[in-house]
Amino acid sequence: MPKLTPESWMARALTLARRGLYTTDPNPRVGCVLVKNRRLVGEGFHVRAGEPHAEIHALRAAGDDASGATAYVTLEPCSHQGRTGPCARALIEAGVKKVVAAMQDPNPQVGGRGFAMLREAGVEVECGLLEKEARALNPGFIARMSRGRPYVRLKMAMSLDGRTAMRSGESQWITGPSARTEVQRLRARSSAVISGVESIIFDNSRLTVRAEQLQLEDAKAIARRQPLRVVVDSRLRLPLAAACLREPGRTLVATCSREGKRRQRLEAAGAEVLVLRSGDEGRVDLDALLAYLAGEEQVNEVLLETGATLAGAMLDAGLVDEIQLFMAPTLLGGNARPLFALPGLERMAQQRPLDIDDIRAIGRDWRIIARPAAISRKP
Amino acid sequence: MPKLTPESWMARALTLARRGLYTTDPNPRVGCVLVKNRRLVGEGFHVRAGEPHAEIHALRAAGDDASGATAYVTLEPCSHQGRTGPCARALIEAGVKKVVAAMQDPNPQVGGRGFAMLREAGVEVECGLLEKEARALNPGFIARMSRGRPYVRLKMAMSLDGRTAMRSGESQWITGPSARTEVQRLRARSSAVISGVESIIFDNSRLTVRAEQLQLEDAKAIARRQPLRVVVDSRLRLPLAAACLREPGRTLVATCSREGKRRQRLEAAGAEVLVLRSGDEGRVDLDALLAYLAGEEQVNEVLLETGATLAGAMLDAGLVDEIQLFMAPTLLGGNARPLFALPGLERMAQQRPLDIDDIRAIGRDWRIIARPAAISRKP
Repeated sequence: MPKLTPESWMARALTLARRGLYTTDPNPRVGCVLVKNRRLVGEGFHVRAGEPHAEIHALRAAGDDASGATAYVTLEPCSHQGRTGPCARALIEAGVKKVVAAMQDPNPQVGGRGFAMLREAGVEVECGLLEKEARALNPGFIARMSRGRPYVRLKMAMSLDGRTAMRSGESQWITGPSARTEVQRLRARSSAVISGVESIIFDNSRLTVRAEQLQLEDAKAIARRQPLRVVVDSRLRLPLAAACLREPGRTLVATCSREGKRRQRLEAAGAEVLVLRSGDEGRVDLDALLAYLAGEEQVNEVLLETGATLAGAMLDAGLVDEIQLFMAPTLLGGNARPLFALPGLERMAQQRPLDIDDIRAIGRDWRIIARPAAISRKP
Repeated sequence: MPKLTPESWMARALTLARRGLYTTDPNPRVGCVLVKNRRLVGEGFHVRAGEPHAEIHALRAAGDDASGATAYVTLEPCSHQGRTGPCARALIEAGVKKVVAAMQDPNPQVGGRGFAMLREAGVEVECGLLEKEARALNPGFIARMSRGRPYVRLKMAMSLDGRTAMRSGESQWITGPSARTEVQRLRARSSAVISGVESIIFDNSRLTVRAEQLQLEDAKAIARRQPLRVVVDSRLRLPLAAACLREPGRTLVATCSREGKRRQRLEAAGAEVLVLRSGDEGRVDLDALLAYLAGEEQVNEVLLETGATLAGAMLDAGLVDEIQLFMAPTLLGGNARPLFALPGLERMAQQRPLDIDDIRAIGRDWRIIARPAAISRKP
């Protein structure tokens, strides 16, 4: 049993929320615990969009015990009419006397309304308990709601000397099976996977979640939702025979080419083609792409799996929120391909500082989680 | 107080030995503890070549209590006539009844003779307790005695994307002050520091131990012994004004040039010039250089501080025993200088696997200790 402190109840709610890591998309991961007389009387988490929110599951589990209980919930209860009605209303109707939320709804349109509805009905409200942990659960949903763009997680596999492939492009496999399982899990939690056309041309990557590689109990159910595959392909060079076009789920080709014939052929081969304005040097405008994905596709978390050019361009544009480097204990030498092309970086004063959050062993490899230091971020 | 097990006494002897880390060169670091009736009666460690060995210090401390005691010593007691006579003889004469050594003397000429001398005199002998730890204390002495060459530790400072300098060569500073203190300590424990002439030309490195940067209590005493500076300079390009020629201690220029005039000028500027046979492509034969350093200069540990070319050549020749990478949380981009030039490495099958021993935070940087995996070593 956990200790009976507010923090421990919220921690339990966060643990519950985490069980929706791979399934709630595009909704946020949310958990809820109902406590009465220092005893847990009901709990639940949001499983899947279209199904009840966490609070509803918890209220159903508690039944009559909900009356007079305190609800610990990892996100402000909603105030809008969803499939099961506003959660704030449901909590009021069940007689819950106090709601402790970890964070306010990040959507500026509705943030605070759930709390207001509760308070108007005489329910005591507290907000901010374990907020940092709650925010870490839904970086994509928060970015989409508050900044109108997804949370971009750049994943790269590299050697100890910072190389991602041989000069020829050969790269299978730098990292071992445990690291590849971690990458599969990163894909599975993402709404979309973005790759540059060059990477697709060389590796013929499928960019899919493979149940057998997830090493998770409910792997098959998870793999039923495939992240949107996005190929950045300014000049529509994606081969019609690309493996990613034949996999379950959707493939979106983002281009600034107006070549109608090529577009038709790609569409016939299974792609959806999105024509965006061009940015630098006739390449797809990456800001516009991310805005589209957040606005039109409800994309929360993006996994960017690509080569040095697109990775460097995203970094240079200040569009990368998190970098996950899987570092293999091997050397590929100075002729091998670099991690990032960062054209124009010629003096030490121009270096791109990072903050390292975590380094740990993943099988025989090491995973480094870093983020661009605030100082080097585009405002 | 430590627990009164043989392991704990040996651990104490190892701790003592470690106190000679920066001073015993070219002798090994050795510690000794004398125990009688489960009580420590004397202890000591070797401080400096020319001064008494660990056993002698411990015997002096124990006085009459040495009689009947057990000696825990991190290395087989010597059997040869040194300044204070053979330690094995001194232990016998003091009446020590049992000697527990962590390891045998690694010199094949004398290994086992100390034990034989003790056994002949009726002293009980055990060997091998905490041997791995004892060997780790003296990798250089062991390499010199058993393989006729020093232990080579390659140190490099790099960005997260595996870059050691900008394309121009600018590199000050990639890592922070804590990492630079660690590098100073690596220099201080080494018998010699090897650098390529290119690095010297660009950075004008002094390659010295600076007391003020060591952050050690006895820093001034440590810095009095400067490691031999070795510049690998096939064509005698070292500038006569190089800073390293004006520092305390010796600078050895290893060349295969027979250019007499240039040599005389370098010698007049303070260098010692060593002409070696040339190896690949008219460059200094690195095997021959290391053999010379071990044989003629009693070099135990070498710190290799250099650029991608010499580092790659040493690695390719199978001459690197340990790699210490100081990794800064920054990106320098694809135009910056690589960690290792490994010419001819073009296919994944040719990659150079490493074993990673340790990764830890050093200030804001990370230190990775790795070694070439056995499979990739030259026999």
